[in-house]
Amino acid sequence: MDIGSILETAFHPNAIAVAGASETSSSYGYHFTRYLLDHGYPGHVYPVNPNRQVVLGLKAYPDLTSIPEPVDYVICCLPASKVLDLLSECPAKGVKVVHLLTARLSETGRQEAKDLEAEILQQAKRVNVRLIGPNCMGIYYPQQGMAFNYDLPKEAGTVGAVFQSGGASGLLVRYGGLQGLRFSKVISYGNALDLDESDFLRYLAHDGETRIIAAYIEGVKDGKKFLNALSNAAHAKPVVIIKGGRDIAGIKAAASHTAAIAGSDIMWKTAFKQAGVIQARTLNELVNLLVAFSFLPPIKGKRVGIVGGGGGISVMSADACEEAGLIVPPLPPEIDEELRTRAPELHAWLGNPVDCSTIRGSSIDAREMLARMAQSPYFDFIIVNITEDAPFTKDIWSSLVREEAENTISVSGGQSKPLVAVVSGGKISSDQFQDWRWKLLAEQQTRLIAAHIPTYSTVAEAVKTMRQFIDYWQAKAAT
Amino acid sequence: MDIGSILETAFHPNAIAVAGASETSSSYGYHFTRYLLDHGYPGHVYPVNPNRQVVLGLKAYPDLTSIPEPVDYVICCLPASKVLDLLSECPAKGVKVVHLLTARLSETGRQEAKDLEAEILQQAKRVNVRLIGPNCMGIYYPQQGMAFNYDLPKEAGTVGAVFQSGGASGLLVRYGGLQGLRFSKVISYGNALDLDESDFLRYLAHDGETRIIAAYIEGVKDGKKFLNALSNAAHAKPVVIIKGGRDIAGIKAAASHTAAIAGSDIMWKTAFKQAGVIQARTLNELVNLLVAFSFLPPIKGKRVGIVGGGGGISVMSADACEEAGLIVPPLPPEIDEELRTRAPELHAWLGNPVDCSTIRGSSIDAREMLARMAQSPYFDFIIVNITEDAPFTKDIWSSLVREEAENTISVSGGQSKPLVAVVSGGKISSDQFQDWRWKLLAEQQTRLIAAHIPTYSTVAEAVKTMRQFIDYWQAKAAT
Repeated sequence: MDIGSILETAFHPNAIAVAGASETSSSYGYHFTRYLLDHGYPGHVYPVNPNRQVVLGLKAYPDLTSIPEPVDYVICCLPASKVLDLLSECPAKGVKVVHLLTARLSETGRQEAKDLEAEILQQAKRVNVRLIGPNCMGIYYPQQGMAFNYDLPKEAGTVGAVFQSGGASGLLVRYGGLQGLRFSKVISYGNALDLDESDFLRYLAHDGETRIIAAYIEGVKDGKKFLNALSNAAHAKPVVIIKGGRDIAGIKAAASHTAAIAGSDIMWKTAFKQAGVIQARTLNELVNLLVAFSFLPPIKGKRVGIVGGGGGISVMSADACEEAGLIVPPLPPEIDEELRTRAPELHAWLGNPVDCSTIRGSSIDAREMLARMAQSPYFDFIIVNITEDAPFTKDIWSSLVREEAENTISVSGGQSKPLVAVVSGGKISSDQFQDWRWKLLAEQQTRLIAAHIPTYSTVAEAVKTMRQFIDYWQAKAAT
Repeated sequence: MDIGSILETAFHPNAIAVAGASETSSSYGYHFTRYLLDHGYPGHVYPVNPNRQVVLGLKAYPDLTSIPEPVDYVICCLPASKVLDLLSECPAKGVKVVHLLTARLSETGRQEAKDLEAEILQQAKRVNVRLIGPNCMGIYYPQQGMAFNYDLPKEAGTVGAVFQSGGASGLLVRYGGLQGLRFSKVISYGNALDLDESDFLRYLAHDGETRIIAAYIEGVKDGKKFLNALSNAAHAKPVVIIKGGRDIAGIKAAASHTAAIAGSDIMWKTAFKQAGVIQARTLNELVNLLVAFSFLPPIKGKRVGIVGGGGGISVMSADACEEAGLIVPPLPPEIDEELRTRAPELHAWLGNPVDCSTIRGSSIDAREMLARMAQSPYFDFIIVNITEDAPFTKDIWSSLVREEAENTISVSGGQSKPLVAVVSGGKISSDQFQDWRWKLLAEQQTRLIAAHIPTYSTVAEAVKTMRQFIDYWQAKAAT
């Protein structure tokens, strides 16, 4: 079978066996059985455990061979010493893919563990089974109810991800989810003993459910295959990558984590640039970029209009934009003319950024100003500062902030240039969960995200993201 | 009177008159009266309004002269056209300082407004009154119940701030408050017509209640006076400054905001460097630095130990540290030796960063590992990743995360190197206010902040802050 078909089977198995399934609530055999039940995997789940009749309400089997039907996909939560035996049972059930959660292999750096890992690969080849892992969390595929953590979104989306780290892949889905990201398929692949990053990238490049690809990679073994898969994927859709392990300590940590040979940072940077791949440095940067790619049309110019907040925020927003290499042009002539006739007290004073504290009480209200900015051909996109610095009472402040979010949502779409919102909810600690102010800001954030407006916590984050986003589309247009 | 005594009077007025006090809930005359009442200003508050007998339960007076006692300090919420008359009433009551909230003066760029502003200054000199402002929020001095916004902390602290922007000064206090900052005195000074940034800096430099100085400055009129005041302040205590208006659009926005002549960025950078002042680029960076200066002793070395989180987080943390110019040394020999004898399965595998997912179940627990790292002479400080990427059930995950926070608090102090925590609560939107996971993370954040452990949302933020913090102390030690 070609790798595409293998992976199709892994994502749509007729049934899943969990080797090492258990009711010990601290064991992965328990967690992985529950992930499938909690997320509503529609096929049959077969717990495999020689010491149990029943696991989590499901009939358990002493070994794979006792399962009454064929099983495409096995999640192996067994210790390393038991993997060879499990693999030898696979042919009897027609198993195509085994996800090896099993760890403590080559990443420990010990010779006997490396030898065992090599033997596992040989055995898998003999029995014609393909491996995901070892030392990884496997598959999150919400549409099929496959998951690798609790409480991940059940709703499917269009971001596909290939992650060498299991923990980081969980954080991607959970924290990205807060900013509105939803995922097609996420694969955590660990030591990449058999199927590797290149195989998964190639699959996602052709996957009809995936529109944007995210990756976290610590090292690759076959550089040529990787570069090939990478260009191929980047040609098909936007690809955003974190290269984990960039300097001495990071490279060493990567080796202890997934036995990855991290390679030189310059080499990676060059490869990403040549392939047209966007590099993110942190999980936060990655999520911010994915949000932009998920919600925005291509933007090919750097001229930004900024609306919202008072004078200090306006100054600091302009500084942040210019330092990110964006262009902050003066107010467009058509708006200037409108001010001259309708609000002469603001004319030749109000500029871009629009200091909204000065337009209050004038004959041009905040919504009209935002709409005019968003429709001007002088801008490529608009940043809306919802962060409200007005020192007003609860009633007035609340209605102002709500209005700003409403205006943003109602102006967006149609003839409007793309909008990006900045809502700072602060770093809320537990006593603030009762505070109306933070709840209100969070509420606006929820509304903006639901309206698919990219929403960031600071102007600095927003403009850093937008700069990379625009650079991507400019480079794309130039090729 | 010298300026020090003038400002002492402004911070400890015998009574405060609010000119333009009102019950119109959208007016600043209403807000400023309420700020004083809400924050418990202990002296007499005299609303001045010719059309009201009573404002917010207080007897109102038609003008300053009708007030029955001397008044040191007046908050002027009147329109610009009425300021000259107000000033002429000041000598009768012995007024020393007037805070001009009043705006729409030179910042509008109009000649008649500039002329009026100049006339206001002449008049103030004639009547021997000093001005704060115009176009500013004035004073927040929690110990005296003086405030310029609602719901600001009543508790006093040791950060003093000089802010040209009123909106930004409110955000500093409110958002900084979430990360544990408390303030001695904050002055928002706007157009700096009379008393200026240099006067306030000089005052805070000598103020016994202020241990750290924060500033946001868009422009200065007297460069020599400023450089003098700045070196003086930076010699006395740590000074962290945002220079607002750094490039074309920012400089233009600053002129429209406070009529500031922003000047060249290089000139400012040089001045800050020579004076030994730390420059922050955003409000977020400023708050992060103030947190470090508030909670940490001087740190003069760059060697960091990192503990917490799984493999991917460890790799990304090492990358972030190294890219910020910190040093991530290998595990110290004494810990290595301990592993060799007590947990041989981890020896020569576990490194720095300490991947806590691998030590679970070994004979060295997470607390001991953290304590050993924190007590090693091989590190200058320790970063603790509380952000938990473990894919466990609510019960197990909750106790893990709580334990991590408890360990951090219990290890800190005494023989321990300084600790810095990273807790990512994500970008919580309104539906997450009901979610136990984010509440739990927020709860740990609250506990860590209460224990005066600097707590940041991402490793990238933490290390950027720490690098600037260490650079400051290294430079200080070298002079």
